[in-house]
Amino acid sequence: MSNTRLSGRLMAVTLADVARRAGVSLATASRVLNGSARAVSDDMRARVTAAARELNYVPNAHAQALVRATTHTVGVIVHDVSDPYFAEILRGIQRSAADAGRLMIVCNTFREPQRELEYVHLLQMQRVEAIILAGSGLDDRAYCRALTESLDSFASLGGRVAVIGRHNIAADAVVPDNVGGARALARYLFDLGHRSFGVIDGPSLLTTSRDRRNGFVQALTASGIDLPPEAIVSGDFTRDGGARAAITLLERFPSITALFALNDVMAIGALAALRERGIAAPDQVSLVGFDDIPIAADVTPALTTVRVPMSQLGAEALTLALSNEETLRTVHLPTEIVVRQSTAPPSAASSG
Amino acid sequence: MSNTRLSGRLMAVTLADVARRAGVSLATASRVLNGSARAVSDDMRARVTAAARELNYVPNAHAQALVRATTHTVGVIVHDVSDPYFAEILRGIQRSAADAGRLMIVCNTFREPQRELEYVHLLQMQRVEAIILAGSGLDDRAYCRALTESLDSFASLGGRVAVIGRHNIAADAVVPDNVGGARALARYLFDLGHRSFGVIDGPSLLTTSRDRRNGFVQALTASGIDLPPEAIVSGDFTRDGGARAAITLLERFPSITALFALNDVMAIGALAALRERGIAAPDQVSLVGFDDIPIAADVTPALTTVRVPMSQLGAEALTLALSNEETLRTVHLPTEIVVRQSTAPPSAASSG
Repeated sequence: MSNTRLSGRLMAVTLADVARRAGVSLATASRVLNGSARAVSDDMRARVTAAARELNYVPNAHAQALVRATTHTVGVIVHDVSDPYFAEILRGIQRSAADAGRLMIVCNTFREPQRELEYVHLLQMQRVEAIILAGSGLDDRAYCRALTESLDSFASLGGRVAVIGRHNIAADAVVPDNVGGARALARYLFDLGHRSFGVIDGPSLLTTSRDRRNGFVQALTASGIDLPPEAIVSGDFTRDGGARAAITLLERFPSITALFALNDVMAIGALAALRERGIAAPDQVSLVGFDDIPIAADVTPALTTVRVPMSQLGAEALTLALSNEETLRTVHLPTEIVVRQSTAPPSAASSG
Repeated sequence: MSNTRLSGRLMAVTLADVARRAGVSLATASRVLNGSARAVSDDMRARVTAAARELNYVPNAHAQALVRATTHTVGVIVHDVSDPYFAEILRGIQRSAADAGRLMIVCNTFREPQRELEYVHLLQMQRVEAIILAGSGLDDRAYCRALTESLDSFASLGGRVAVIGRHNIAADAVVPDNVGGARALARYLFDLGHRSFGVIDGPSLLTTSRDRRNGFVQALTASGIDLPPEAIVSGDFTRDGGARAAITLLERFPSITALFALNDVMAIGALAALRERGIAAPDQVSLVGFDDIPIAADVTPALTTVRVPMSQLGAEALTLALSNEETLRTVHLPTEIVVRQSTAPPSAASSG
C-alpha cells in the first residue's frame, strides 16, 4: 500500500463501513480485524476480511492505542541479545514485567549508537509506557546529547525511562559496582602472587569497559604495578575477540601470568585459545572474567569471575521505570568475586 | 492520563495548536515532540514541551505510523531470549533486517502459549510489517486454531508472517531437519556400540521436541532397540532440567551408556551433573546434544551434537516474511552431526 492511497481515500473507511458491507455486527468486525483471540466462525471471518479488502480498510489500531493512552508495554534496548549478559538482564525484566501485567519488547542495537537512537524514536512512536536502556552508556558527548534529547521528548509526554549502568544522562538508573568488582579482582590476583598482567578490554567508549578497566588498573597501580598500555588489547566483548586478544597479549608479553577479560564471554574465548595452543590454565596463565554468566561455571577450568546480579539489575530497572517520581533515583548493586578453578598462584617456571 | 480525558478533550489538540502556543514553527514543534534526532535549541525545546503540557497534547504518533502504512519494523516472537538457540536465530534475523533497512523488535513468551497470542495481538496493534514466530510450534489443536485466527487477521490486512520450525499452520516456514538429525545421532551412537540409551526430552507438546524424540526413537527401533517410556524424562529445555533428568535416568537405568539431550542447553546441564557425581564422560556415559550452540565447543568434554543452522534459519525467515507470494513456501534446512569429545564406544565395564 502506498502512502498516497493511505493518506487519501483509505483513511475515511471506518470499521462500521466494513461491518455494514459484511453484514455483521460491529463487535464481530472488530474481533476479526483487531486480532482478538475470541472465536469467530469461518464464514463471518471470511465475510469481514473480504469486505475489509474490498474497501481497502486499514484498521485504526494506532488510534485505539492512543485512546488506551499506553500500551502496557515496556520497550527494552540492548546491545546484543545473543550476549548472555543481556539475556540474563532481559530475564529479570521479563519476570517483573509479567508480575506487573506488562508485555516486554526488545530492541537490539548490535552496539551501534545510531540504531539506539532510532529505537528510542520507534518506541516513542509505538507509545510504549516505558523504555529501559539496558546497554552500557557511552562516554561520548554527541551521543549523550542526542540521547538526552530523544528521551526528554519521550518523558515530557508521560513516557518513563530507566537505564542500566552508567549513562551520563539524567534518568533513573541501576548501576552495578563495576569499579569495585574490578578492583577486588586485581587485589585478589596480586595477593595470589601475580605481578605481570594482561587486560582483554571491551569496546573503548562504553562506560562499562572504562569502569572495569580503570578499577583494575588503579588497584594495580595502588599495589605498585604500572600496566603498560600495550598490555591492554580490545576483545570487543565477543568470544572470538577475546580469543584473539589473549593470543596477542601472550605474544607481546610472554611473561604474563594473569589475564583479566572484561567480560566472561571474552574470557571463555581466551580459554579456548589457550587450550588450542597448549597453554594450561591456571597452571601457566590464570584467567578471570566478569559478569558470572550461567556458562561460566560449566567451562573447564570453571571461571573465576565477578558476579554481577544481572537478573536483579533488570528487575530493579523495571521497578524504577514503572514508578513515577520527580527525584532522580540511582540504585547501586554490589558485585562480588566468585573464585573457581581458572586462577592459581603463578608457577615458579612462568612467573616473570 | 485517563481514557476519559484522552478520548474526549485531548484528541482535539493538534501539533499546530502546540506550535502556535509555543510561538515556533510546525517543523520545530514536530522535531521536539516526535523524537527527531535533529537538534533543537534548549529554549525552543522548553517552550514546545511547556506548551504541549499546558494543552495536554498527545502526540499523534499512531496516526503518523498509520500514514506511513508500515513501521518498517519486524516483530519476532521467541520462547526465551536467554536460550542461546534463540539468541543465534535473532542474530540471523537482525543481520538480515539491518541489510533490508528494517528494525527488529523481540517478544519473549517464556514458553507460555497464551502470551504468544497476546504478543501477536500487540504486534498487530503496533502495525509491524511482519511477524516471525521463531519458537517451536505446538501439537495442540486449540492453540493452533487461536494462533491461525490471530495471524489470519494480521495477514488479511497486509501483514506478513513467517515461522521457524513445524507449526501446523498455513504460513511460510523455515524448517530445520530435526527428525533427520536425531535419526543420524541414534545411528551414530548405535554404530559406536551403544545399546542402552536415555533420552532427556524437551517440553512435551512442542513440535521440536516431538520431532527430535521421534527421530531418535524410530532409528533405534529400526536397529532393533525398543526404548522403554521410562527411559525418556523431560528436562524442559533448561540447563537445570537437563541436570535433573540425567540423574533420574541413570538412577532408573544404571546400565545406560549413552544419553541424548534434545538440546545442547540440557546436555550441558547433564554434563555438569555427571561431573558432580564423578561419572566420567565419555568413559562411563556418552552424551549428545542438539543445536550446536556456540558454547557446545567450549565445555569439557566438548559436546557431540547436531548442528542446526540457527542464524540461517533466522535470515531465511526474514526473507520469507518480507517477500509476498500467494503460494505458501517451506524452506527445509539440513542438519549435520558434529562429533566432538563427549562420545566414545561404551567401555566393557559399563556396557549392559
